[in-house]
Order: sequence, then structure tokens, then C-alpha cells
Amino acid sequence: MALETLSANKSFGGVLTKYKFKSAALGGLDTQFNLFLPANASQGKVPVLFYLAGLTCTEDNGTQKGGFLRDAADEGISIIFPDTSPRGAGIEGENDDWDFGTGAGFYLNATNPKYAKHYNMATHITMELPQVIEAAGIPIDFTRQSIFGHSMGGHGALTLYLAALSNNPKTKQFRSASAFSPVANPTKCPWGQKAFKGYLQGGVEEAVSIYDATEMISKIKDNVHILIDYGTGDNFYKQGQLLPENFLKAARDAGHDEVQVRVRPQDGYDHSYYFISTFGPDHVHFNANFLKA
Amino acid sequence: MALETLSANKSFGGVLTKYKFKSAALGGLDTQFNLFLPANASQGKVPVLFYLAGLTCTEDNGTQKGGFLRDAADEGISIIFPDTSPRGAGIEGENDDWDFGTGAGFYLNATNPKYAKHYNMATHITMELPQVIEAAGIPIDFTRQSIFGHSMGGHGALTLYLAALSNNPKTKQFRSASAFSPVANPTKCPWGQKAFKGYLQGGVEEAVSIYDATEMISKIKDNVHILIDYGTGDNFYKQGQLLPENFLKAARDAGHDEVQVRVRPQDGYDHSYYFISTFGPDHVHFNANFLKA
Repeated sequence: MALETLSANKSFGGVLTKYKFKSAALGGLDTQFNLFLPANASQGKVPVLFYLAGLTCTEDNGTQKGGFLRDAADEGISIIFPDTSPRGAGIEGENDDWDFGTGAGFYLNATNPKYAKHYNMATHITMELPQVIEAAGIPIDFTRQSIFGHSMGGHGALTLYLAALSNNPKTKQFRSASAFSPVANPTKCPWGQKAFKGYLQGGVEEAVSIYDATEMISKIKDNVHILIDYGTGDNFYKQGQLLPENFLKAARDAGHDEVQVRVRPQDGYDHSYYFISTFGPDHVHFNANFLKA
Repeated sequence: MALETLSANKSFGGVLTKYKFKSAALGGLDTQFNLFLPANASQGKVPVLFYLAGLTCTEDNGTQKGGFLRDAADEGISIIFPDTSPRGAGIEGENDDWDFGTGAGFYLNATNPKYAKHYNMATHITMELPQVIEAAGIPIDFTRQSIFGHSMGGHGALTLYLAALSNNPKTKQFRSASAFSPVANPTKCPWGQKAFKGYLQGGVEEAVSIYDATEMISKIKDNVHILIDYGTGDNFYKQGQLLPENFLKAARDAGHDEVQVRVRPQDGYDHSYYFISTFGPDHVHFNANFLKA
């Protein structure tokens, strides 16, 4: 699992490096990720924020269009940008749809035998990337992790954060989570239902308690630290793919107040990186507060 | 020359709009540009900064990867992002090279009859875009213009700024200029020589006094306001395509001190937008100081 360096660009005093390695979690396929290390990483280990991108994206969208590096450099934290799915698994139909298969891994571990060997983005992000990066001697302090994401990646950030809180205490690995226009109640929307029917042997039913942020927040008693922004001009929001109000209601019903869970409608913004980059500074600083506490 | 709106995205409280129109300066071809208007444009006309992109780029590179909108919004200024050449002129060989023809207009007015009808990016930027935008009633104050750019676009920014100072006083239209890794002495480098031999009837000789920033700054007596950054790890710099030291020497020899002309080598940075976005805030604020004076 040696890391191969594909490129390195100095940015905001730090360095953005693109790596490649053979991923066990993704069935032995090559995968790529970007890693931003701020200047202060030369003086010791730094906290880390994961950024999970949305449908059709790669490890490059957040680095090129998110505008996150500026604030990460200011805060002295690193950011890991994983890919959004395995690539080249060779599964029939994998490349037919933009919202399923390649570029659309939904940050879960597949149980449908057709996908179970390769589509394990949850394990890839929560276990494999930290192990591979630590083994390479890269100065990241994995006792200080937070996670954020956009759309499908917002779903990923919320569910991986909540899973780590509610399941095995050993994997309680994220201090906070935030999301731009997340798919917040995926068992109730077309994107999520299609993904779960495809990837999971038990279909949508299997996803309810483990891959649906709205269902998960309703069961959690711990204090949580969550920030969500979505645009009221977002067509996917209007089409009912995101359902942030469902998440907010479930959070409030479970006793999570506005200090624990903030969900902010942003007037007239859409689903694009022009929206993300506008509120990116807030999200980086929100998570950095917990990473540096 | 009616403007057609292709898209609009809210960003940083303002709106980024992509427009299309039939360009007289470009021989009647359709051209596109992006325009960022900050929130305060709803209260009255705002100053404007032109961003000229580099070889192979379009009107989208600066908007997506530059990170400029955040600071433009803070300063309350607009930014116009033109394309880098005419597209679809149908001239033989126009699409054969990445450093000549399509995507490589070099911000000049061609005199070689083969290109003279279409390749007039200088007129497109300094005359046509202001006229078209004013005619459309867009609230930009064209008595307050500055210009910046990257690489070939840095050449464009410096030469259009200096031409407006040294030529017809009526066209003294830019208050300041800045550049990231500009092609600063193009009559002395391969990119520039190739462009001038192709676009100009008189070849490189014709370009010396009107399209070479180093030659132009050596003749100018007026006070100038110029900021240049380049990366010492930039391969094009190492290959002698940029020659910023030549520009700096010519400026100093002509009596322009470090208040008038600042040229900053940036240790280890390359030619990419990861470099540009790092110093973009400095450049937006530098130009905004003159725009708002």
C-alpha cells in the first residue's frame, strides 16, 4: 500500500499533494486522493478535516473550486480529499448512470455481492486512508479528525460522523461534521433509494439505521456538533433530493438544540461550487474550532 | 450585440453571470464572458477589474479556480472574465497548437491578413466589452477600471495598461495593473515570438513598442501602479518564457521605484491556480485601492 506521489503544488504556504495507492478496501483497485498540509505541519502533527465530494466528482473538485485551502492554512489544519467511488471495477452497468456506480459510491459499504468487493467507501475513508497516511509518516494527528462534504458527500460526512458516535466507541473518530446541501434523508429521496437498492442486499430497509442521517440523528443522545448550509435556489433541494428540513426536525425532536445542530437556508444560492466556496470559510472555521479544542 | 444570459450563480452575496454575444471585434463570432457583480451593485455603479487568463484557458478558469470573488465581494468591486481568443474562426491551423490560435489570442490586434478579421482581443477587451456592458445597463462605472491576469493574461494586463498610459490619452483607462507569472518580455521568449510572427504582418519587430511590457515600461515617464508575483518553482519561468527580471530592470532603469513597480519572487510556487489563488487576495486588494481612491 505504498503511496505514489503524482503531483505537488505549493499553495497558501503549505503543499497540496496528489497520491495514488492500491486500495484493499476498494478491492485492490488504484485510488487517488489529495492532501493539503499547512506550513505548520513541518513543526509537528496537524489536525485533519476530510472533504467528501458529491455525485460525478473526483478528488479534485474540492481542491480546485472549494476555496478551502486558504482557511485551512490560516487555521493550521490539513484536509484530505478522497475520490467519490472506486474506479475501474469492471462491474456491468457501473458507468451507465451519473448517480450510481462510478463517481457515486455514496460513502457506504456495499452488501450486494455484485458491488461488495469494490464499493466500500466507508471503510476506505474511516479506516484505510488514516492507516495508509500514518504508515507513510505524514504528520497528521488522527486523534483530531472532523469531516465535511457536499451533496452526496454531505450525506457521507453526516452519516460517518453519526455512525462513529452511535456504534463502536472505538470508531468515535470525528469531533464535528458539516455539510453543504447534503442528501440528508436518503431513504426518502430518489438518489438515495436508487443507491441503497443497488448497493445493499437488503435495499432501502438495510440503510435506515446506518446510512440515513435523519434516521440516525433521531436516535442519538450524545451531544453533536453539526453545521449545515443549503441554498433555497438549489434545484435538487426543490426536487426533494436533499430534505434538510427532515433532518432539522428529527434533530430537534431528539433534543439537539441550535448549539448542537445548525441548519441554515441560504437565500437564492444554488448547488454549485459558487455556493460552496461562499460558505466554505464558515465550515472550515466551524470544524477547526473542535479540531483545535 | 444584445447580451444573452447563459447562467447565473449567486456567490459571496453577489451574482456571477455568464453572457454570450456576437462580437464585432472578433469578426462577428459568438464570444462568452463571465461577470461578477457584488451585492452593492444593487445600490449603484461599482468599479471593475478585468481578469485575463492564460494559454488554453477560457472565461471560466478564473471564476472557478482563482478564488477572486471572495475579495471582490469584500471590496465591493466587479470582475469581468473575458475569453482568451476568438473561437470558431475557421482559420487553417488555428486549432493545431496549444500556444497559438484558439485559446491563445495574446490580447493583441492581428495585422496579418489571415488573422486580422478575428484576432482582435485588445479591442474586444478595451473597447467592445465596456460598450456592450454599458449598453446593457449593467451597473459598472467604467471610469474606474483596473486589470490583472495570469501568464499570457499577465502580458495582456501589463501591455493594455501601459498602452493606455503611453498612447492616446482618451484610452488611459486603467488605474493599475497586476500579474501572476506574466509573459513579461514576449519579444524575447518563444511563446511571444511565435505569437507575433503569426499574428502580426511585421512579425516580432512590430510588437516591440506596442505589445512588449518590458520595452514599454522603459519608455514610460508617468507614475505607474504595478504588482507582479511569480513562483521560483514555475517551470515556464525556468524555461525563460516569463522573464520578470527583465521587466523589473527596465522599470528601475526608467526610474520607476518599488512603490510604482513591485515584482515579487515567491519561493517554491509553480504556474498553477494553486499559486494564483494564494496571492489573489493581494492582487484584488492592490487594484481595489486604486479603483476606490
